[in-house]
This record gives sequence, C-alpha cells and structure tokens, in this order.
Amino acid sequence: MNTPEAMNLPDKTNLPDKTSLPDEQRRIVLARRPQGVPVEDDFRTETTAVPSAGPGEVLVRTVHLSLDPFVRGMLTGRDLGHPPVHPGELVPGRAVAQVVETGEWVVAETGWQEYAAVPAATLRPAVTPPGVPRTAVLGALGMPGLTAYAAMTRLLRPEVGDTVVVSAATGAVGGTAGQLAGLAGARTVAIVGGPDKCRVAVECLGYAAAVDRHDPDWLDALAAACPDGVDGYLHMAGGAVLEGVLDRLAVGARVVLCGLPEHANETGRTVLPAGAVMRARAVVHGLVVHDHQDLRPRFADRVGRLVAEGRLRLLEDVHHGLDAAPAAFRRLMSGRNVGKTIVQVAPDAAS
Amino acid sequence: MNTPEAMNLPDKTNLPDKTSLPDEQRRIVLARRPQGVPVEDDFRTETTAVPSAGPGEVLVRTVHLSLDPFVRGMLTGRDLGHPPVHPGELVPGRAVAQVVETGEWVVAETGWQEYAAVPAATLRPAVTPPGVPRTAVLGALGMPGLTAYAAMTRLLRPEVGDTVVVSAATGAVGGTAGQLAGLAGARTVAIVGGPDKCRVAVECLGYAAAVDRHDPDWLDALAAACPDGVDGYLHMAGGAVLEGVLDRLAVGARVVLCGLPEHANETGRTVLPAGAVMRARAVVHGLVVHDHQDLRPRFADRVGRLVAEGRLRLLEDVHHGLDAAPAAFRRLMSGRNVGKTIVQVAPDAAS
Repeated sequence: MNTPEAMNLPDKTNLPDKTSLPDEQRRIVLARRPQGVPVEDDFRTETTAVPSAGPGEVLVRTVHLSLDPFVRGMLTGRDLGHPPVHPGELVPGRAVAQVVETGEWVVAETGWQEYAAVPAATLRPAVTPPGVPRTAVLGALGMPGLTAYAAMTRLLRPEVGDTVVVSAATGAVGGTAGQLAGLAGARTVAIVGGPDKCRVAVECLGYAAAVDRHDPDWLDALAAACPDGVDGYLHMAGGAVLEGVLDRLAVGARVVLCGLPEHANETGRTVLPAGAVMRARAVVHGLVVHDHQDLRPRFADRVGRLVAEGRLRLLEDVHHGLDAAPAAFRRLMSGRNVGKTIVQVAPDAAS
Repeated sequence: MNTPEAMNLPDKTNLPDKTSLPDEQRRIVLARRPQGVPVEDDFRTETTAVPSAGPGEVLVRTVHLSLDPFVRGMLTGRDLGHPPVHPGELVPGRAVAQVVETGEWVVAETGWQEYAAVPAATLRPAVTPPGVPRTAVLGALGMPGLTAYAAMTRLLRPEVGDTVVVSAATGAVGGTAGQLAGLAGARTVAIVGGPDKCRVAVECLGYAAAVDRHDPDWLDALAAACPDGVDGYLHMAGGAVLEGVLDRLAVGARVVLCGLPEHANETGRTVLPAGAVMRARAVVHGLVVHDHQDLRPRFADRVGRLVAEGRLRLLEDVHHGLDAAPAAFRRLMSGRNVGKTIVQVAPDAAS
C-alpha cells in the first residue's frame, strides 16, 4: 500500500537486537592533516566504547555511510559553512542509520563510526519511494541531487536543443545533473577520466557523447562533440578542463562553478579566463548548495518521481566495511569513483 | 523653444563655407601594428585629396573625433565584431561631424581624418537636449553611456544600500556607470590610477570613496572603503584589480566584465579566481555593448533626461587638432584619461 499514511510510518524492518549491542565500536579519526589528495595514512581506526545517548540524543547504528568531497575541506579547515576537523577527531560524515531503540531508518550525521549518539532534532527520515533503494537519500535524492537540481533548474537552465557539458559527469552530482539536462531537452556531453567512465556516461546515464580528459587529444574530442559550441557547463573538475570548455562557449552560455577539486585537495588554484567569458557574453555562477535549501520540497517531489518512474538512474560506488572508508575517500577525491560513494558499514538485511 | 518639432529640425548652425573647401586634407593611418600600449610612432599623418562623395554618400567634415578603446583591438585584428585595420589604412573612429552640403550635425564613422565620404544611410543626427553639449553623443549619450546603462540596469542591477565598485571609474564608461549606480541608491567606490583621479571621482562624480590602485596599500584602502564587502563590481582594469576586488565580494555579488585592457593592449591575460566566485556565490557577466542595442531608445530617453536635468555629469578629456590623436590614444590606452577622450579636429563655432 503506497498511501501517504503508509509511506510516512516509520519503517521498522530489520530491527536490531538490542540485547546484542556490543560494548565497543570502531571509529575512524583524522591522524594528520592531508597534504593534497587524502591517503589512507591520514586516517586512523580506533576502538572506543559505544557512545551512550545524552539528553535529547538517540543512539543510531551506521549502516550506509556517505563520503562527500566537502569533508576534504573540513580536514584542513577550509570548507564553506562547516567547522574544521582537527587531528584526533572523528571524521564527519552523513549516513543512512537505524535508531537502535526503535529500528527507524534515518539520515544522521554519524561520522565515520559504527554507532553514534546524535541529537534527535537533527534526524530526518530515510524514506524513499517504493522500489527506490534507501541509499538514494544520500545521492540523487540527497545533497548531491539537490546540488544538481539547483544547478540545472535555477542557474544553468538548459533549453531544448542546448548543448550542455558536465564534468565529473558520472559522479554523484554530475550523473544526476546530466540526466536532468537531458530530460530538459538538452544534448548532453560528459567529461570524465578514463574510457570506462566514458562508457558508463553514454550507456547508463544517457549522455550523447563522452570525452576522456586523460586523452591527450581531449580538446579535439570536445570540439567534435560540441560542433555548435557549449551553451551550458557544470564545472566540477580541474582548471585545465575549465579552460578547455570555456574556449568552446557559445554566445550566451551559462557556466556553473560547482566543485573545485584543486581547491578541495589544495593542489592548485583554479582560474577562469576572463577573455572567454567576455567573448561569449557568458554568465558564470558560483554554486553552494546550502543557499538552495528552499528548493528542497520541489526537488524531493520532482526528482523523487523521476527516480521512482525509472526516468532518472542511480549509480553507486559501494565499498564494504568501515575500514574501506579511507581508501574509498582517496578514490573519491582523486576522481576515480563512478556514482555516489557509499561505505556499507553494517549489513542491511532489508535492502 | 524646446518643442519636439524644434528639436527634430536639423541644426544648421555654423554652416561651413563650401567655397572654402580645401583640395587637400590630413589623415592618420596605421604605420605599424602596435606592440602593447600604442605609441605615437605606430601612426603616420598623410596629406591626401579631400575625398569626394560617391553614390549614396555624403561628404562630412570631422569636428569632434571620439577615441575609443575598442579601436586598439582592431589595430591587431582582435576586436569582437569589427574588422581588422592593416598598416597603411586609415585609423577608424566615430565623430561628431558636419555635412558639408547642408551643415547638419551628424554622428559619422569618419576615421581619423579631416573630411570623410560616408554612406548617408549610416549617419545619425547628433542631437542633444537643450543645454547639453553636442559631444555628449560620443560619451554619456553614446556608446560608452549605453555600455554603462546596460551594465547597470541589465546585469549588475544595483540596489539601495549596495556597495558598488567601479574600476576605470573616471573614464567614459566608468564615470557614467558610477553615477547611475549612485542614482539607484548604491554606495559607490571608485578604483582609479592616481590621486588626481581620486579627487575627480569623489568631487565631480559623487563616488563615496576612491581608491588609488597605484598606492601599494590599495587593497587595504579598498577593504576600508567596503567594510561590508562588494555587492557589485564593474571591471575595466587589469587582472590585479580584478583579483583584489573579487577577494572582497559579498555573498550574492554581481560582477560585470566590461573591459580587459591587458587583452586590448596584448600585455597580458586576465583571469578570474574561481574560488572567490564560489565563495561569494557570485554571478559574473561578460558584457559586449552590441548585444544591448535594444536598450537604446530607453537609454536615450532616461539618460538624456538625467544629463539635461544636471543629475548626471559629463567629463571630457579634450585634445586639440588631428595631430593630437596618437598621443591622446596612447593616453587613453594607458588609462591616463579623465572622462571621454575627444579630439577636436576642427573649430566648432556653435558650441
């Protein structure tokens, strides 16, 4: 029964056995501040007591841990709108978790650990439409999806027949953004790293063409894929990609700066060629998703329906066990992930 | 009498004496392609026969010659939307001129010469509201004014209480733009080169503050002048200024790229820091005035009225005699002009 009432009821499947709650848990802390792309040795696994819930808190069990690029900035104290993480402190992260007391599925800021005591007021239900995996609330129906939705519907605004280029095109944001542009009638072109991702971009995500930025001739490939120039560009790659795409802008193009991996990893400084912006009379927007929370109800309704109807595909890059998190984060921050990066920390018999 | 009829009548004051038309005239041609900021030796004065009007053409006498930065790009074949000028060819330029046959005052593409045969269909009447000098059609009521009007009303859109920064703030575009922003209720801050221009900016053009970009501490002065950050920025200076201002953007700022002197002079390549754009969730627009010709009637009506009412001041950088043009152009392209650069080629007894 998919009545609204049924969907709003807490989902108590797979209720954990409270009597089996362990005394100890594992968690991952920052060992040292990363230099560049984070590596495994930047993190350390610790065994600690399972936290106990204080006043107003509930104890949750981390099941699906989301790894997100913005956490990289926090590790060196430079993220917009999030406090810095210091060595010895728990690495922050959002997860689909289960309330130990009730079995309810929630989205919680657990951090990279097996159990977390979190303020009850901060929890959101981890509810997805029928047939849609619960982990979608971390990807296409979560913050990355909202980022893609804001970028496309509010800033880039693709029109029928536009050529829209997306970099990091098979990632959590890019994969959703490219599909949304395609659904709006644009011809979409992916920029990704490597031939495998080119295949995924075209075969799974519906891009009309894909360009491998590791190919020395990628600029020619981009030109061939965009014979009438680029009307819209969603940027989440390095400065060389930004420069290459801006040289191909059509007059009236819209550019959305959504991610700057060189800044996140502190490996460089991304600049925009002003001449290309002038030549195209382009509009360049800087996007920070927190500014677009007002879109959340419409986004949840519209993108939720697209996913439920199978018109928008989900891609996940799933890793198993908490110990996999540092290597998975390294993979994410070096752009090798395909789809939303998730670490399955505990078994999820219901999924 | 300021009836519409009277204003639309051709103004035949100071009718030139046709019998005194000389056989020869002087004109200035490109001697060699400039390297960097143009210098006097890039130009050569020639004596030629006074042109004769062919079919559909009229002979005009150049009176007030306008010098404009976009001509620099034409001299090395890089202007957007204008053909290149080759060595030996007449240097192009717009002027307030007088039709030899009738004495009518017109705006014509005369080039840097004393007389020109121009297609009659390309002429526009050089009419200004009563009390407004005719040369205003080259500045605040001409292309520079339309540039400023499009930048402010269409792209930057200052709001009451905004802090709006203008670079090249005492130039033909900047002087008009700063005043338009002030009339819209913004607090305006000028960036200019030198203390004299700082004084002009504040005392003549109503800027709340002026920053001298030659001052080694100009970034501190900018910060002091913009304690709440920069809500709008009109850019017509070098990359160092762009970078300095972008570091001070307030959240939601609008930036309009209107002139890139390093590109015009081929002395460098201006880039925008992408991190600053993201941090401020800024919107950056590339402006080319030709895209905004549709604004011309409203611009002429509104800015014409502001000038006539004395609410918008005109500043001119006037030079005398055709021979003064190369040095005046050098002055313009090195940013030393104050106000609209005009070369008075012939006497204008009526003005």
